[in-house]
Amino acid sequence: MNKNRLEELRDTFYTELVDNTMPFWIDHATDREYGGFTTFLDRQGEILSPDKPMWVMGRITWLLSKLYNDLEQREEYLTLAGHGADFIKKYGFDDDGRMFFAVTRDGRPLRKRRYLFTETFGVIALAEYARASGDSESLELAKKLMNLIQDHYRRPGQLEAKIIPETLQTRGHSMAMIRINTLQILRAADPDGSYDGQIDQAIDDVFTYFVKADKKALLEMVGMNGEYLGETPEGRCINPGHVIETAWFIMEEGRLRNDMELVNKALPLLDWSLNVGWDEKYGGLFSFVDVEGRQPAQLEWDMKMWWPHNEAIYGTLLAYALSKQKRFEDWFERILDWSLQHFPDKQYGEWIGYLHRDGSMALDLKGNHFKGPFHLPRQQLYCHLLLKSMLTE
Amino acid sequence: MNKNRLEELRDTFYTELVDNTMPFWIDHATDREYGGFTTFLDRQGEILSPDKPMWVMGRITWLLSKLYNDLEQREEYLTLAGHGADFIKKYGFDDDGRMFFAVTRDGRPLRKRRYLFTETFGVIALAEYARASGDSESLELAKKLMNLIQDHYRRPGQLEAKIIPETLQTRGHSMAMIRINTLQILRAADPDGSYDGQIDQAIDDVFTYFVKADKKALLEMVGMNGEYLGETPEGRCINPGHVIETAWFIMEEGRLRNDMELVNKALPLLDWSLNVGWDEKYGGLFSFVDVEGRQPAQLEWDMKMWWPHNEAIYGTLLAYALSKQKRFEDWFERILDWSLQHFPDKQYGEWIGYLHRDGSMALDLKGNHFKGPFHLPRQQLYCHLLLKSMLTE
Repeated sequence: MNKNRLEELRDTFYTELVDNTMPFWIDHATDREYGGFTTFLDRQGEILSPDKPMWVMGRITWLLSKLYNDLEQREEYLTLAGHGADFIKKYGFDDDGRMFFAVTRDGRPLRKRRYLFTETFGVIALAEYARASGDSESLELAKKLMNLIQDHYRRPGQLEAKIIPETLQTRGHSMAMIRINTLQILRAADPDGSYDGQIDQAIDDVFTYFVKADKKALLEMVGMNGEYLGETPEGRCINPGHVIETAWFIMEEGRLRNDMELVNKALPLLDWSLNVGWDEKYGGLFSFVDVEGRQPAQLEWDMKMWWPHNEAIYGTLLAYALSKQKRFEDWFERILDWSLQHFPDKQYGEWIGYLHRDGSMALDLKGNHFKGPFHLPRQQLYCHLLLKSMLTE
Repeated sequence: MNKNRLEELRDTFYTELVDNTMPFWIDHATDREYGGFTTFLDRQGEILSPDKPMWVMGRITWLLSKLYNDLEQREEYLTLAGHGADFIKKYGFDDDGRMFFAVTRDGRPLRKRRYLFTETFGVIALAEYARASGDSESLELAKKLMNLIQDHYRRPGQLEAKIIPETLQTRGHSMAMIRINTLQILRAADPDGSYDGQIDQAIDDVFTYFVKADKKALLEMVGMNGEYLGETPEGRCINPGHVIETAWFIMEEGRLRNDMELVNKALPLLDWSLNVGWDEKYGGLFSFVDVEGRQPAQLEWDMKMWWPHNEAIYGTLLAYALSKQKRFEDWFERILDWSLQHFPDKQYGEWIGYLHRDGSMALDLKGNHFKGPFHLPRQQLYCHLLLKSMLTE
């Protein structure tokens, strides 16, 4: 990639982030009446649901804090991050220390889920906000939440109320992968803590249980000892976006530690995901693939969703920056090009989240319980920062 | 509809049912090793998952019994119905009298769900089988299950573990509608029982809580007293296929009782669903629609699924037969034509279940936890029987 291209990309990512993505959310989602953010929005930014998805509340709070910490110290970012952190602390927690999945606009609990994903987004929100504001209460709360997550992770099965444990105990990739990134963010906010060993453990879990080199795959669900559960669609499932995310979390760890061996361990995960996930017919990445090439069970298996594309844009750029392999540059340009042709909403800003296989729009909403200001602005921010550092190397 | 068309349709539905749909399932799904049926099949009829979805186990057992009772007394239907009933009795039940949602191929429990839909399919399986075989144990079990369902229905909220009850108590249309049909089938198997009052009650619930004539809609979710929860996508959700099913369940009740007033009460539900559910751009019925015309939240909202089309084919034919209104004949022909152009799998038999909005194939599987031999063969059987009776009128 030549210097002109690097500069052009660095500036485009910055402009898109600061002048398009962030204003959409700040203008439409900030709830000045009840606190926090209403992120369940339609294409124009009008409220589709006043309920507050707490995954997204954690993620926007993390994002605003991160922008303040690592992009530029705009007062607005810090103030709004505090606005999100306050809502989380006030309304996000159940009496048992766990978090709610969704609350009403005015903060009354609506749903709590078995899995601890909301809690991981609570950790990154409170940890990053603590780093931005110096608020020690937020840091303590983040550490306490992380302990709860780790504690649950070490005793698998206790949350799996729907599965009859004696019949089928399984391990899921999601909790292994999300812990890597959650611990990385907490470590940056808590220099006195010891996190490297926990991160090593989480990375080890990924390779020990879920990576099947003979199948060129990282599987979403395996037996308790990593057994291949290939009789069922669940056991054959590959989620390319998830694997790409895991790959770049691990690459970031290698980059931080100056450990190219770790980076090189992650690169095949990226290669496999792109090879099996890319749709040769229409372009774009599938949401789910069957490792044996059979029909995936998910109805949305062939939808082109915004988030795997964002993960792939940053993942391939990082792989290129660290490995200098030309194929990652090619993938980066290909995925970025396809994404910019299909996802951006030229009329109302931000990105469309859900496309049909052929790239036509399937849903025009901007937010729901899972979509909000996260994958897109994180990609734009991380690409911008990486390009900046590539240019000063 | 002239006599030729009635005869042609009567014969086509019969042939398709007996020579296409049923052989696909009987040949591929009958599990002669472990009992019951493996219905989670790919396009060719090969096993995609050996796990046994108990919704489908109940439905296929009902279907085989019903064919024996009302189409023709083939020994094969009765034997296979018994094969299904045995599996359900042996492996379908938890110690608390509730049923499992899925079990392994050899019958070990995999999942149990909060809602009692599996149980409703257990009732229709065991009741219809009792009617076919005279097996009183099956009838007693069906009656006991129905009592359990009614008991849970009268105490709403006790199963809603995911929702924090103090914040939002809601009523769902599904359990109101499915009870009408379940009670109708149980009544036919149990002439000594008293079911009319319970059926009246279930129909009343539909009109009292879910039908909103001012919005020309039957809503999927309302407040405990039928309040319109229009702030959220859940509260604005219309499921056209569901409403059409409810409409014809009620029409059947009117037909049985010779009560045209009841039939006429159901016809608007059908009209509304077709008007709002039909896709003017590509044809076919949407899976979910927002009553205020906003973006539905379900990722699969615009998929064209096999089941609403089957419900609409029979629903419009029944509406035409009972009301003689020309518009229902037109709808019937339009929906049948679109369906036959898009759903039948000319290569391997049976129907494709899930199409994209534009009618192209999205998933080619024949069975999963919800799809199996039910909506399609029921439509074919009911249309055939209705056409036969229209011809002898």
